[in-house]
Amino acid sequence: MNQELFQALSAQRIETPSWGYGNSGTRFKTFSAPGAARDVFEKIEDAAEVHRLTGIAPSVALHIPWDEVSDYAHLRRFAAERGVTLGAINPNVFQDDAYKLGSIAHPDERVRAEAVGHLLACVDVMTQTGSRDLSLWFADGTNYAGQDDLRARKRRVRQALAQVHDALPEGSRMLVEYKLFEPAFYATDLFDWGAAYAHCLAIGDKAQVLVDLGHHAQSVNIEQIVAFLLDEGRLGGFHFNARRYADDDLIVGTTNPFELFCIYAELAAAEQASDDLTRTTARQVAYMIDQSHNIEPKVEAMIHSVVNCQEAYAKALLIDRERLTAAQQQGDVLEAQRTLMDAFRTDVRPLLAEWRRESGLPEDPIQAHRASGYQQTIARARGTAAAGGGFPVKS
Amino acid sequence: MNQELFQALSAQRIETPSWGYGNSGTRFKTFSAPGAARDVFEKIEDAAEVHRLTGIAPSVALHIPWDEVSDYAHLRRFAAERGVTLGAINPNVFQDDAYKLGSIAHPDERVRAEAVGHLLACVDVMTQTGSRDLSLWFADGTNYAGQDDLRARKRRVRQALAQVHDALPEGSRMLVEYKLFEPAFYATDLFDWGAAYAHCLAIGDKAQVLVDLGHHAQSVNIEQIVAFLLDEGRLGGFHFNARRYADDDLIVGTTNPFELFCIYAELAAAEQASDDLTRTTARQVAYMIDQSHNIEPKVEAMIHSVVNCQEAYAKALLIDRERLTAAQQQGDVLEAQRTLMDAFRTDVRPLLAEWRRESGLPEDPIQAHRASGYQQTIARARGTAAAGGGFPVKS
Amino acid sequence: MNQELFQALSAQRIETPSWGYGNSGTRFKTFSAPGAARDVFEKIEDAAEVHRLTGIAPSVALHIPWDEVSDYAHLRRFAAERGVTLGAINPNVFQDDAYKLGSIAHPDERVRAEAVGHLLACVDVMTQTGSRDLSLWFADGTNYAGQDDLRARKRRVRQALAQVHDALPEGSRMLVEYKLFEPAFYATDLFDWGAAYAHCLAIGDKAQVLVDLGHHAQSVNIEQIVAFLLDEGRLGGFHFNARRYADDDLIVGTTNPFELFCIYAELAAAEQASDDLTRTTARQVAYMIDQSHNIEPKVEAMIHSVVNCQEAYAKALLIDRERLTAAQQQGDVLEAQRTLMDAFRTDVRPLLAEWRRESGLPEDPIQAHRASGYQQTIARARGTAAAGGGFPVKS
Amino acid sequence: MNQELFQALSAQRIETPSWGYGNSGTRFKTFSAPGAARDVFEKIEDAAEVHRLTGIAPSVALHIPWDEVSDYAHLRRFAAERGVTLGAINPNVFQDDAYKLGSIAHPDERVRAEAVGHLLACVDVMTQTGSRDLSLWFADGTNYAGQDDLRARKRRVRQALAQVHDALPEGSRMLVEYKLFEPAFYATDLFDWGAAYAHCLAIGDKAQVLVDLGHHAQSVNIEQIVAFLLDEGRLGGFHFNARRYADDDLIVGTTNPFELFCIYAELAAAEQASDDLTRTTARQVAYMIDQSHNIEPKVEAMIHSVVNCQEAYAKALLIDRERLTAAQQQGDVLEAQRTLMDAFRTDVRPLLAEWRRESGLPEDPIQAHRASGYQQTIARARGTAAAGGGFPVKS
Repeated sequence: MNQELFQALSAQRIETPSWGYGNSGTRFKTFSAPGAARDVFEKIEDAAEVHRLTGIAPSVALHIPWDEVSDYAHLRRFAAERGVTLGAINPNVFQDDAYKLGSIAHPDERVRAEAVGHLLACVDVMTQTGSRDLSLWFADGTNYAGQDDLRARKRRVRQALAQVHDALPEGSRMLVEYKLFEPAFYATDLFDWGAAYAHCLAIGDKAQVLVDLGHHAQSVNIEQIVAFLLDEGRLGGFHFNARRYADDDLIVGTTNPFELFCIYAELAAAEQASDDLTRTTARQVAYMIDQSHNIEPKVEAMIHSVVNCQEAYAKALLIDRERLTAAQQQGDVLEAQRTLMDAFRTDVRPLLAEWRRESGLPEDPIQAHRASGYQQTIARARGTAAAGGGFPVKS
Repeated sequence: MNQELFQALSAQRIETPSWGYGNSGTRFKTFSAPGAARDVFEKIEDAAEVHRLTGIAPSVALHIPWDEVSDYAHLRRFAAERGVTLGAINPNVFQDDAYKLGSIAHPDERVRAEAVGHLLACVDVMTQTGSRDLSLWFADGTNYAGQDDLRARKRRVRQALAQVHDALPEGSRMLVEYKLFEPAFYATDLFDWGAAYAHCLAIGDKAQVLVDLGHHAQSVNIEQIVAFLLDEGRLGGFHFNARRYADDDLIVGTTNPFELFCIYAELAAAEQASDDLTRTTARQVAYMIDQSHNIEPKVEAMIHSVVNCQEAYAKALLIDRERLTAAQQQGDVLEAQRTLMDAFRTDVRPLLAEWRRESGLPEDPIQAHRASGYQQTIARARGTAAAGGGFPVKS
Repeated sequence: MNQELFQALSAQRIETPSWGYGNSGTRFKTFSAPGAARDVFEKIEDAAEVHRLTGIAPSVALHIPWDEVSDYAHLRRFAAERGVTLGAINPNVFQDDAYKLGSIAHPDERVRAEAVGHLLACVDVMTQTGSRDLSLWFADGTNYAGQDDLRARKRRVRQALAQVHDALPEGSRMLVEYKLFEPAFYATDLFDWGAAYAHCLAIGDKAQVLVDLGHHAQSVNIEQIVAFLLDEGRLGGFHFNARRYADDDLIVGTTNPFELFCIYAELAAAEQASDDLTRTTARQVAYMIDQSHNIEPKVEAMIHSVVNCQEAYAKALLIDRERLTAAQQQGDVLEAQRTLMDAFRTDVRPLLAEWRRESGLPEDPIQAHRASGYQQTIARARGTAAAGGGFPVKS
Repeated sequence: MNQELFQALSAQRIETPSWGYGNSGTRFKTFSAPGAARDVFEKIEDAAEVHRLTGIAPSVALHIPWDEVSDYAHLRRFAAERGVTLGAINPNVFQDDAYKLGSIAHPDERVRAEAVGHLLACVDVMTQTGSRDLSLWFADGTNYAGQDDLRARKRRVRQALAQVHDALPEGSRMLVEYKLFEPAFYATDLFDWGAAYAHCLAIGDKAQVLVDLGHHAQSVNIEQIVAFLLDEGRLGGFHFNARRYADDDLIVGTTNPFELFCIYAELAAAEQASDDLTRTTARQVAYMIDQSHNIEPKVEAMIHSVVNCQEAYAKALLIDRERLTAAQQQGDVLEAQRTLMDAFRTDVRPLLAEWRRESGLPEDPIQAHRASGYQQTIARARGTAAAGGGFPVKS
């Protein structure tokens, strides 16, 4: 049993985001964190540290232009030398002044062309970084009823996505993210999984849906969306984080660890599904973290995140599937529920410590990080970068 | 202008539900209303009264087996003699003991077969009642994580829907309703518009999505879903009602009249769309009320509902589309918003009184109903039927 | 350590509700469960079975008039002979026809007087049953803006509560429950903890707030309300259950076990607080289950509920308070969070099995229940009672 | 009738916020608006323009230190010369680095002392500006369960508020604002009206609750909170804005104009209440706007806001109170609801145009603003100030 389990644990992958290592904040304030990464090289160093300690975070997602460099081959080597690879490319079409009323859904076709141009440039970056996935999130939307034509905006989105899709090289994918709201407060153009799914279906096989755990309405059952998309062969990946209220972007697994477990329970089941499409889809899912650490030390927060995903997956692997299926088929509600809960109740820390020992990793990555002095070292070396975010301060 | 407007108003249709005229309640209690309809004939009489007063409610939806009769041709004549027709057929697969763990998604194939059998029997009813639409709502779902296999249930739903779809006569449709929750409290099999849409897309052209205003998560933008489905040619119809909390099933337009207006604004725009698919789809939308009156006199509550829809549509027709489009294209956010609001701000009561006068209807249907003594008459004739709902009372 | 822990576990109490053993359902349907208790005597037998297996459920709450008997002394003896006592008295002022528009907030003073009369009669029952707590939930509210005067209703509530408060015998308490919505869908008169708290404060020392886990708006932090009320000396008790959507009334701890743990973490801390008021308040909290089992076997569901509370409390007792306080005072966010999570991560099943062994209880109460044949016995003896709830069926 | 109505309209007051005239944004981006006010003097000029056009916005709220000046007497004269006065003082204890983990609830007493020091300095500013109200919003809270001790934080808040309360000069007030979340994502120390109310009650008569329309959980009935606080004599004021999702800070009245009307309906009723406390409280309510315009021209957006409040109040004044009360007392649900709706349905634009004519104001303030060239003038004079907010851009 343990061997199979350990193989699965060894195959798990969590990609960390470059932007999770720099300063970030709320609209009220971005607090400056000592040692926060100031450029893409420092971000990669931090990502490498997280991978060194956890063993399952071997790639780092990039945000363009935040992480833009003139020589991506060099960046790739820089990463490789530190034991990590460059992961998904995340274009940014929400921070230029032109994008005030949208990017690919903007009423002005010149703005749309500019946005598509940036997306295509990012496709080009992918080929240089060796990335499989273009990860697309759009801030597009409206703040007021009537502000723009909802159907027209939908068509503009469709057209832009199709154009980018057709430019993707063979073997690569575009992951289409959706979000209930923020920064748009009336209607977000890609507002839920259904909208993202409909677009993906229309534009082609390289388009897959990306699920961000913080982008749903209250009480929505995320694991059910995951199961649905897996079964349709359209689940492309995740942006992991945690939330109670809005898109809180907290450390994944901290608000409701049972939900994270239920999501992994669907994924672990799908990895073993008898159905080809589901199984293949599950095995290609991109697991990525997308968090915005406001008050936490960033590297340690990321280790927490990776470990929380690992624990959730380990518990999901421990589900007694035969017992579960039998109870389900008999309509034995409480036995089925208890079977799932028994896996969740299990304390997987000893098991993971053993797996880490066997894998040559520190048994307690958080403790190891604290003991390593890494945080003190980067704080000393990098200082405390000024943070630009939050409400304008008095001039 | 008014002529075109009056034509549109004359073409508006709102179908009322037979079950809105009988006793209904919450899980805590069903209060008995004096004069509440006791059978399908009384329900049709009430629906006819609503149509007589409003002029735009010429059909009544049936719920099978609640409204089952041995001779539908007779029922059809009974309705015709009172000036109304029989509308959508609503199968009931949630009240038999067999359906405790689901109907078309039930783990036991015998239960699924029983449910499909009832659905097919309802298709047969449609041909007898002359109904175009089979309106499908399923209570199917689970209360606990692990209770059943989410992907397996999805496949069972797909299979059953496809089977019913293929049995539909030419020219008829199936409307697939979705619901966030209740009576299922963990996962509802048809949980949102995206799930309903994906199923419709897979099973064929006669399957369309039905939007119930009370079946969404908090803060979800319903008019955007409406716009999206219209543009995809998959909006089949509505179940109108109002809610603040859950599926409260209140009189439509009472909780947030601006939302109802925004929904009609999308529909009115789509009716005039240059795009064929959108326009055709809009013109075939089935507008139906689905409310559960707990404390209100039922016939009067239904007149309120029809009038509220009429006012929302009238305001939507008053939107200055040229001014709106110009402002949208210029990115003039506040002018666009104000243009929409100007229509909403308009008091359409005088306009509607005039249209009613011209149409030979009472200028104030609610006042006319109160003056007619209809409620007193049915209370006398029918008495107060015992209501079966709510918590079991002490035996 | 374990000795202190075991003492705390031995002192834990969970009261089960009589109505949790009978049939209950949703507004759509009450499914009949084989063996469901048909009267208060059978309910007490079931409660006794739950206590026999768990050891921490020694009392049963009554609902009047559902559980009304002519001789409460007899009922008390009946319970005592089965090892349980009669707990909180729950008046029912929501099922009579008179209460359609409210009970203590009704616009008609005669209805209010009737409702207060019932509440006072329940105070009299308390003295006969030996109950300490009068547990008050009101369905009062309105469905439409304008339906009634919100301030007038508030004053009526205040007056009625004060009247009942002043009739309470020395040493007894009234627990004032609040609820966001249902069955009222516009405004519920006792709508949140703040409203209940304000009333309690105004009417006297015997009035305390009761927290039902299913009665809050989405995303509300319940453990913070618990902490606030403990600190104000006004937390009277709980109605435990679980929910994702509305007042789903599922088995407590099934939807988000971490939330239940966080609530117990506040309670366990308060039990040891240096502050007298907080500590005394915590030790008098009434822990009660209030669930509505729609699809689950009722006795087994109740055992699940009790065990889930026990596990949550056990984990709360395992929190390393010194480490936690130190981290909090140093502003070490991640260490503090991890300290709490470490307790939650612990698998307390072995510990509880040991405590049960020492307490002469079956190590696995659910397994013991299944093995006992109790469910089969009551199903045989009681049969399947007809269930009255749900939508009226076709006559 | 109209004379009384016009008197009420003439007495209406809406305070606009200085920070509503400068650049503001989301955490993703603060877009620079041409002509956005760059300092407190320009903000006052803009506020004066809004008052010049609307006639009911004669004061402007200040945010300290954003609007800090060395000579408040000068600022007061500057405002007076432009026809406006200085309104509520809003201390800022959330933007200093020290406040990362809180201000008055911070675990470190030195930080708490610093925060209280700033609050007391703001009390001093009040005396210089002639402001009646100190308007207190705190970002204090925690992001993770366990991060800090909830009860300890509550006590720290209580102590700080009491200290500031006791320093308030005679005749002045402190308004205690609450908020569900943001920027805290696990627990906000002043999390709802109940928490604010409990603190106010404990610290003294000068403390009143402030209701911000965007600070509640989904589906919460705000007008009921307003009614409750009015009846308790503890409603101090409002921060008006609109939201659908979180604290969206949109133009008040745009998302759900019926809700704004219902709130004003409670206020208008309370102004005429027979009960002294309610009436006096209602007449002292501070009506303030608190919005964050992300994409809208700021001065025009503020005029929209003021006009929307005016329309809501005008409609509230038109409610036929006798008819309403009669229907309520008879339990005539639909007549009562319709009475309220009839006022809401009324188009008050002609009435307000007449009132404005009589008051020497432009009949259409928005049109007048557009025609005035004010926006073009300030854009030219002030240019486009760089905006500091949003995610850090690439250095």
